[in-house]
Amino acid sequence: MTELLVVGSVAYDDVETPFGRREDLLGGSATYFSVSASRFKPPRLVGVVGKDFNPADKAMLKSHGVDLAGLSVDDSGETFRWGGVYAKNMNDRTTTYTHLNVFANFSPQLPKAYRDSSFVFLGNIAPELQLNVLDQISAPRFVALDTMNFWIDSKLDVLKKAVSRVDGLVINDEEGCLLTYKPTALAVGRALQEMGPRTVVLKRGEHGALLLHGDDIFYVPAYPLESVVDPTGAGDTFAGGFVGYLARCNELTADNLRRAMLCGSIMASFCVEGFGLDRLRGVTNDDVMKRYNKFVALTQCPKLTL
Amino acid sequence: MTELLVVGSVAYDDVETPFGRREDLLGGSATYFSVSASRFKPPRLVGVVGKDFNPADKAMLKSHGVDLAGLSVDDSGETFRWGGVYAKNMNDRTTTYTHLNVFANFSPQLPKAYRDSSFVFLGNIAPELQLNVLDQISAPRFVALDTMNFWIDSKLDVLKKAVSRVDGLVINDEEGCLLTYKPTALAVGRALQEMGPRTVVLKRGEHGALLLHGDDIFYVPAYPLESVVDPTGAGDTFAGGFVGYLARCNELTADNLRRAMLCGSIMASFCVEGFGLDRLRGVTNDDVMKRYNKFVALTQCPKLTL
Repeated sequence: MTELLVVGSVAYDDVETPFGRREDLLGGSATYFSVSASRFKPPRLVGVVGKDFNPADKAMLKSHGVDLAGLSVDDSGETFRWGGVYAKNMNDRTTTYTHLNVFANFSPQLPKAYRDSSFVFLGNIAPELQLNVLDQISAPRFVALDTMNFWIDSKLDVLKKAVSRVDGLVINDEEGCLLTYKPTALAVGRALQEMGPRTVVLKRGEHGALLLHGDDIFYVPAYPLESVVDPTGAGDTFAGGFVGYLARCNELTADNLRRAMLCGSIMASFCVEGFGLDRLRGVTNDDVMKRYNKFVALTQCPKLTL
Repeated sequence: MTELLVVGSVAYDDVETPFGRREDLLGGSATYFSVSASRFKPPRLVGVVGKDFNPADKAMLKSHGVDLAGLSVDDSGETFRWGGVYAKNMNDRTTTYTHLNVFANFSPQLPKAYRDSSFVFLGNIAPELQLNVLDQISAPRFVALDTMNFWIDSKLDVLKKAVSRVDGLVINDEEGCLLTYKPTALAVGRALQEMGPRTVVLKRGEHGALLLHGDDIFYVPAYPLESVVDPTGAGDTFAGGFVGYLARCNELTADNLRRAMLCGSIMASFCVEGFGLDRLRGVTNDDVMKRYNKFVALTQCPKLTL
C-alpha cells in the first residue's frame, strides 16, 4: 500500500491583499500541501499545533481524508502565527510578524505506523529536522524537499546533506539561484541535480514552473487568471498536487512527472483564487480536469514547416 | 505580393555582460527585427544612420535580403549610439549612455514603393512617428507596434491613438501593466485588446511570452539555455520572428499566430547566445526546426485521467 507523508507547519495567518483583510486563516506548509494532495492521495500529516487550535479546522482536514495521528497538540502555547501584507502587484509581500509559538520546539516524531511511508514531502523546516525525519522512514520511494533563503543563509552544510539524500527538490527559483550561483533556470536545475536529486522543480510563481527529471525537461506555465485574491500557500499547494499525484499513480515515469507538474500548477491556480483555503478545499476532480484541458490548449504547438 | 516593413532604430552598441565587453556592435530595434525576420521573410527597412555607418554592416543586412532603399544616411552627424552594462543575473541593466545623434531628427519617410507594405512592425519610436508611418501606408493587413515606459509616461494620449489603429501589440509585460494598471498578465492582455488590437503579445524575457489573439490564448516559454551571453535585442528579435513568420504565411489563423510565437521565441533564444548579432545572423532553417522540436517536447502534456 502506497502511503504519502507530509511534515511541515500548521499555522494561523492574518493576510491582507488588495482584495481585503482576513484573520485567523488556517495555513502553514503542511496544511496547504495536505488539502491539495488530498484531491489525489490523502496524506499523513506530521506537525504541531497549540492549545488554541480550532476543532473545526481539525474536522476540515479530516473531511479531506488527512490522517492526523501525527499532528501533536502542545498545550504549553499557541499555534504558529504569521501575518503578511501583499502589494498591489501581489509579488511584493511584507511579513508583519512571525510568532513561532509551539512550532519553535517542533521536533517531528513519526508515529510507528508512518515509518512505512513511501512518498514523503519535507516542507520548509530546519534541515536538521528534515534529516531527522529521513532517519525515521524505513524505505521511501520518493522524498521531496522544500527550503527557503533563511536555511540557505544559516544552515547551508546541513541543508546540502539533506538535499543529497532526497529524490526531489521543489523550490522557488530564487532559492535555486542562491544554492547554485548559476545564471539561468536550466543551469540552476542541472547544478541542483548534481547535488543529488534526480528530480528538480523550480517554482516561478506567476511564471509557472520548470521540471528537470533525469534528462527530461518540462515547462508548465501558471494558469492564466484574471485576478489573484491571495497568493499565500500557492507553493505548498503546488507541491501537494505534484507529490500527491505521484503517490496516487505510484510510478515515476517521465509522463507521470509531467502530469504531476500539471496537477501542481492546477491546484495552485485554485489556491490563489480565494483567501486561505477558501477555494482550494472545494476543488473537485471535474474542476481539475477542466483546467487540465485548458492547459493543454494553452500550450499546444501546431506543426511547423519551413 | 506580400511585403514586410519595419520602422525603427539602427544603432551602434557598446555592451558589457559577465561574458565580456564588446564595442561598436551593430544594433537597434530595426536591425535586430530585420535579421530575425529575414529567416522567414526579408523586410524593407526604414531608418536613419550617420556618416560613420560601416559599409560592411550595410552589406551584412543586404546579404540577409533586407531592402535598404528606406535607410537614409544623414551626413550631418553620427549613428545612434547606446552603451549598457548587464548585471550577473542579466535582468538588471544599466544604461551608461544614449547618444541619439542623427536619430534625434528621424522622421520616417517611406519610399513610394513601400506604401503597399501589407505587414508592418513599428519599432519603439515616438508614437507621433508611428502614426506618421501609418498614414503613409495604403492598405496594411497586419500592423504591430512596440513601445516603452518613456512614451507611456510622456506621450500617453498619442500612444493610445496609435495603439487604437494597429492590429497587434508586441510589448514587455511591465509596459502592459503601466498601460492598463491591471494585476495579472491575462487581465493586462484583455485590457490591451479593448484598446483596439485583436492580437496582443506580452513578452516576459526569460519567462517566455503570452499571446492573446481574439479568444485564443497561447503561452510559449523561453527556450531553456545553460547560459545567456548578451540579452540585447532579444525583444526586437522576438518581434522579427513573430511578424516575419506571419508575413511569410500571409494568413492570420490562430495556428499561424501560435507558430509565429514559437518562431519569435526560437529566434530570441539564438539572439542571446552571442554578442550583438553574432549568433543570430547565422541561423539556418535547420537550426529553427531543431529548436522547434525541442519546444514541442518541452511543453507536451500527456493525457490525464482522474
